[in-house]
Amino acid sequence: MLVMGVDAGGTSTRAVLATAAGECAGFGRGGRGNPTSSGIPTALAGVRGAISGALEDSGATLADVAGIVIAMAGHDARGGRSDWILDPLREEGFTGTLTFESDLLAMYSSGAVAPVGYGVVCGTGASAVRVEGGRIVATADGLGWLLGDRGSGFWIGRSAAAAAVDELDGLGPETALTPLVLQAAGVAAHRSDRSAEGRPAALEQLVRVLYAQAPVQLAAFAPLVFDAAEDEDPVAVRILNAAGEQLVRTLELVGAEPGPVVAGGSIVSRDGAPQRLLREHLAAAFGDQPFVLVDSGAAGATTLALRHAGVDVDESVLARLRAGIPV
Amino acid sequence: MLVMGVDAGGTSTRAVLATAAGECAGFGRGGRGNPTSSGIPTALAGVRGAISGALEDSGATLADVAGIVIAMAGHDARGGRSDWILDPLREEGFTGTLTFESDLLAMYSSGAVAPVGYGVVCGTGASAVRVEGGRIVATADGLGWLLGDRGSGFWIGRSAAAAAVDELDGLGPETALTPLVLQAAGVAAHRSDRSAEGRPAALEQLVRVLYAQAPVQLAAFAPLVFDAAEDEDPVAVRILNAAGEQLVRTLELVGAEPGPVVAGGSIVSRDGAPQRLLREHLAAAFGDQPFVLVDSGAAGATTLALRHAGVDVDESVLARLRAGIPV
Repeated sequence: MLVMGVDAGGTSTRAVLATAAGECAGFGRGGRGNPTSSGIPTALAGVRGAISGALEDSGATLADVAGIVIAMAGHDARGGRSDWILDPLREEGFTGTLTFESDLLAMYSSGAVAPVGYGVVCGTGASAVRVEGGRIVATADGLGWLLGDRGSGFWIGRSAAAAAVDELDGLGPETALTPLVLQAAGVAAHRSDRSAEGRPAALEQLVRVLYAQAPVQLAAFAPLVFDAAEDEDPVAVRILNAAGEQLVRTLELVGAEPGPVVAGGSIVSRDGAPQRLLREHLAAAFGDQPFVLVDSGAAGATTLALRHAGVDVDESVLARLRAGIPV
Repeated sequence: MLVMGVDAGGTSTRAVLATAAGECAGFGRGGRGNPTSSGIPTALAGVRGAISGALEDSGATLADVAGIVIAMAGHDARGGRSDWILDPLREEGFTGTLTFESDLLAMYSSGAVAPVGYGVVCGTGASAVRVEGGRIVATADGLGWLLGDRGSGFWIGRSAAAAAVDELDGLGPETALTPLVLQAAGVAAHRSDRSAEGRPAALEQLVRVLYAQAPVQLAAFAPLVFDAAEDEDPVAVRILNAAGEQLVRTLELVGAEPGPVVAGGSIVSRDGAPQRLLREHLAAAFGDQPFVLVDSGAAGATTLALRHAGVDVDESVLARLRAGIPV
């Protein structure tokens, strides 16, 4: 028996074909897979690309697959409708069951098999969930860049922009972030140039550039904060400490009985001292509970597909799955 | 000799026809007058409407007007080009001089004739300027909703939305703002309803509504904070105190030698105890300097037009102008 787990993300998609013992029989990648953020045609291409890749990798066909789980953000946003992807799969010979699951549950399931535990994700956005009985029973934050996502990549990137703006406007201290942000934004004005009304020309140019783009693009400045923190810029270190505190606070909002903490997302899973700082914040918050870092929800989506097929996924099955999936 | 001062705002335009002695000979209103935010056809209609109204009010014609000052935000954004409005005025017989001025300088000049002083505006946005020798020599904030406008109507409105979101997400205390924000946003879900994944249905609906609109629309929640503060809701009072502190900080950024402080904008000029709180913050910051509240830049634009025509505008001329302009 074979099942397929698909981690359909906003930037890329991964598909894993696995046996009941957790052996990875095939692996494939696709492009953007979330129909809410990318539209159905793009998401369909991303998900089908990843599934085809996994099938080709293994030599199996869709007719051999008993069940597929697709994990994505906003998995219930289409009112549970799955025809956009199920119809094409049926045409290609798929006769099994297709289930959508939360990307956060998949991320948690990539790192832990315990029925009770916690997931915290920090990429462009940030949120935390409590899992009980293998289902999400509580969620905190994930409220988007305008209202929440505290401690997220957007939050860190906006803090970098704000630090630069504050220094140029005379409100904040000098920071290594200012030249980094000005350079990344393509601002050419010299920092000592002044406009007619007494403000730095660089500030006016920076503001123009930042309002000309979508707000969420501020997340692109997050890596600058990591770079500046590596060089011990105090403002950058303060931003990352504050981000860590925000993530811990979000995690505590869903906290109840003890359980493992699984963390994922581009911001916490990068290498480097500042990321370790963030992870230490998170690990410390839940004391002596296991803390697991995962780099995607692919193993978790596959775990969920195995469970839907009646397989009891234990630590050893999950470990085998994780070991078999290429990084 | 007659001059015209035009306060061309983002929502409405006012024009004042005045004599050298500061007597208001005519007053007119028009619609939106800012070409940067509303486009040239709309702004042209708004400015011409206000000018025509003032002329009709007085019985004068454009040929009688020696000079016109149009005050607007981003007055220098068109590279000083004035043909969009000057050409039509010339066609109607205007032979005098047309000058664009900053809306902030006009606001300051509505409240003070001192060559050195400070202006602080708090409407949807927030900024402060220092005036020396009748010109703006320093500017702080005014950096827009994404990067600044600390203490502004947007800032207050977003704080109201954040307070509601935080209460519903378990992060913040109970506040009278939550039901007010939910009602204003048209959220119908009962606050105790929960979604499948353990969060309030009202929170999910609220988030959907707020992301479906332009971010700057959050400013519409600002009046809810004033209402809740009147009823002594501690969260609302805290938001307004914080807004006052932010405005004082922005004003201090441009502070130097003593001078009068002129405040304007929809948020500080409204009636009510909370607005008084904001004004007291501002008045206290500059100690025993005169603190003047103005409701538009119309008198100031006219003051600037008189100065361009060689008139020495003193306290009594300004007082006459202000007294002659309808509220």
